[in-house]
Amino acid sequence: MKVLIIGGGGFVGQKLARALAERGTLRGTAIEKLVLADINNPAPFDSTVPLDTVRCDIADPASVAEVIDAETDVIYLLAAIVSAHAEEDLDAGLNINMMGAFNVLQRCRELGTKPVLVFTSSIAVFGGEVPDPITDASYLNPQTSYGTQKAVGELLLNDYSRRGLVDGRGLRLPTISVRPGKPNRAASSFMSSIFREPLNGAEAVCPVDREFPHYYLSPRKCVENLIKAAELDGEALGQNRCMTMPGRTWTIGQMIDAMTAVAGPEPAGLIRWEDQPEIKRIVSGWRFDIHADKALALGLSADESFEDNIRYYIEDDRPGS
Amino acid sequence: MKVLIIGGGGFVGQKLARALAERGTLRGTAIEKLVLADINNPAPFDSTVPLDTVRCDIADPASVAEVIDAETDVIYLLAAIVSAHAEEDLDAGLNINMMGAFNVLQRCRELGTKPVLVFTSSIAVFGGEVPDPITDASYLNPQTSYGTQKAVGELLLNDYSRRGLVDGRGLRLPTISVRPGKPNRAASSFMSSIFREPLNGAEAVCPVDREFPHYYLSPRKCVENLIKAAELDGEALGQNRCMTMPGRTWTIGQMIDAMTAVAGPEPAGLIRWEDQPEIKRIVSGWRFDIHADKALALGLSADESFEDNIRYYIEDDRPGS
Repeated sequence: MKVLIIGGGGFVGQKLARALAERGTLRGTAIEKLVLADINNPAPFDSTVPLDTVRCDIADPASVAEVIDAETDVIYLLAAIVSAHAEEDLDAGLNINMMGAFNVLQRCRELGTKPVLVFTSSIAVFGGEVPDPITDASYLNPQTSYGTQKAVGELLLNDYSRRGLVDGRGLRLPTISVRPGKPNRAASSFMSSIFREPLNGAEAVCPVDREFPHYYLSPRKCVENLIKAAELDGEALGQNRCMTMPGRTWTIGQMIDAMTAVAGPEPAGLIRWEDQPEIKRIVSGWRFDIHADKALALGLSADESFEDNIRYYIEDDRPGS
Repeated sequence: MKVLIIGGGGFVGQKLARALAERGTLRGTAIEKLVLADINNPAPFDSTVPLDTVRCDIADPASVAEVIDAETDVIYLLAAIVSAHAEEDLDAGLNINMMGAFNVLQRCRELGTKPVLVFTSSIAVFGGEVPDPITDASYLNPQTSYGTQKAVGELLLNDYSRRGLVDGRGLRLPTISVRPGKPNRAASSFMSSIFREPLNGAEAVCPVDREFPHYYLSPRKCVENLIKAAELDGEALGQNRCMTMPGRTWTIGQMIDAMTAVAGPEPAGLIRWEDQPEIKRIVSGWRFDIHADKALALGLSADESFEDNIRYYIEDDRPGS
């Protein structure tokens, strides 16, 4: 079995790659080759599973054809231009998020091998005047270019799956927190920084108030769910291959209290409260009363408490952990 | 005011063009130029409004750039690869329905003139396991490539409108009946043929049974609504620029009874009942319990009865009318 992770240089891609290498199997078969592809050559790591790292620009069909071949059994398409970046640069978002997904689907179609394709969409496909709660039957009403481009990817994934050209699975990721590494250009970046930086002993800025509610998942659970998504029987998914990945809704205040419960009172004191109108505008268009019934029924799961998210960060990602 | 109809050679495009030429105004301004564009040079007609007919392949950005210029105030994008055709030929549907819409949006963006863009989507964007009734807040769950590609057009139209690149209006057309002319490759083609051919004294085949329910609109009302859609104030539409065009739900039996009420018993005797599994498969995935509340609130409207649809065909389109 050959597994390809497009976006293998990102933090989810890297964690997923390590988890797959550790398991050594997927869909009941030994992984004989694990390929990490990204716009910059992804970082390799020590692995008992043979590991390749390659450069791939999914905006370019020829580059996509180089990384997806007839031996590729499972493809993870994680690469994306994140929300605030796609909002600033419409072309970048269209080229990577929309045409990139299209190019991957077209390459699978060309090969005729019907690989399993796990596509990460986002809860940013939801928004606007759609009644609560948001379910898998809610209108996709993105309020950003990022959400729009992800929703296009979902539609195409469903159609190509229906036509038997890929065996697709689309997962709308909750906001991942606590995300390791540095802040990025996602509008949701602060939803990790305000825990990560304080837990690392540094200051962080919170641009919304304590009552701001949102829908979250830890990186550890996200990776577990991505593996589970590839392992599902395609038939079990039905015609619609896209669904929300389970998460939990917390307010900023609840999450800070969870951090304090796990790590004591010091980290919360390192949060600086500062209005950022553009970030606030984007994130206040996102939905939070979200149900992931389909994914839960298929065996995917969410964290039990935000204390868990904090503990996972400390165990898995805090520098020196 | 310069008005462009892309798909100006089709039957809706031709009827819309004649209606606009007869009015002579749109959005309170005199129409100084009416341009009909289509993959084949559209048929011109006698018009007091100056009329141009041009060839345009919307799959080709250069061809799109030739027909949309800085003077184009209102664009109707009606051109499409219809349902059964898009199902047979995925590339044709992707090139025209998806990339064609994208190319038109990109051209508007490039010009920076924010034209009014009226885009015809379809109720084929609805389907599958989504609870009744279908409203403007229902999940777009197309069961065909045609529906998928139209849904992508809707998403992009909303995003480009939100970004101020076009002033978009997306209308999901009900099945248009009674459609004049010859049968086409739409799976819904029989939904006109079984009235049109008998009213013209010829036989027609009905591939579904009398109880089959569906959502319809007459060509006359469709054109009225398309004009109304261009005249609406963009702000009144809100963030989401797409909505279902009002129609009415009838069974085949109710429609045949309406034909008999208007035209006597002979036409119904010319309908031959014959199973066509592929057509049945496609149309049985379509939804019929459809509400068009947003468009109704904005002043668009449906036919009063299917008797009206029959009368409009006899008045407007029956050969010799």
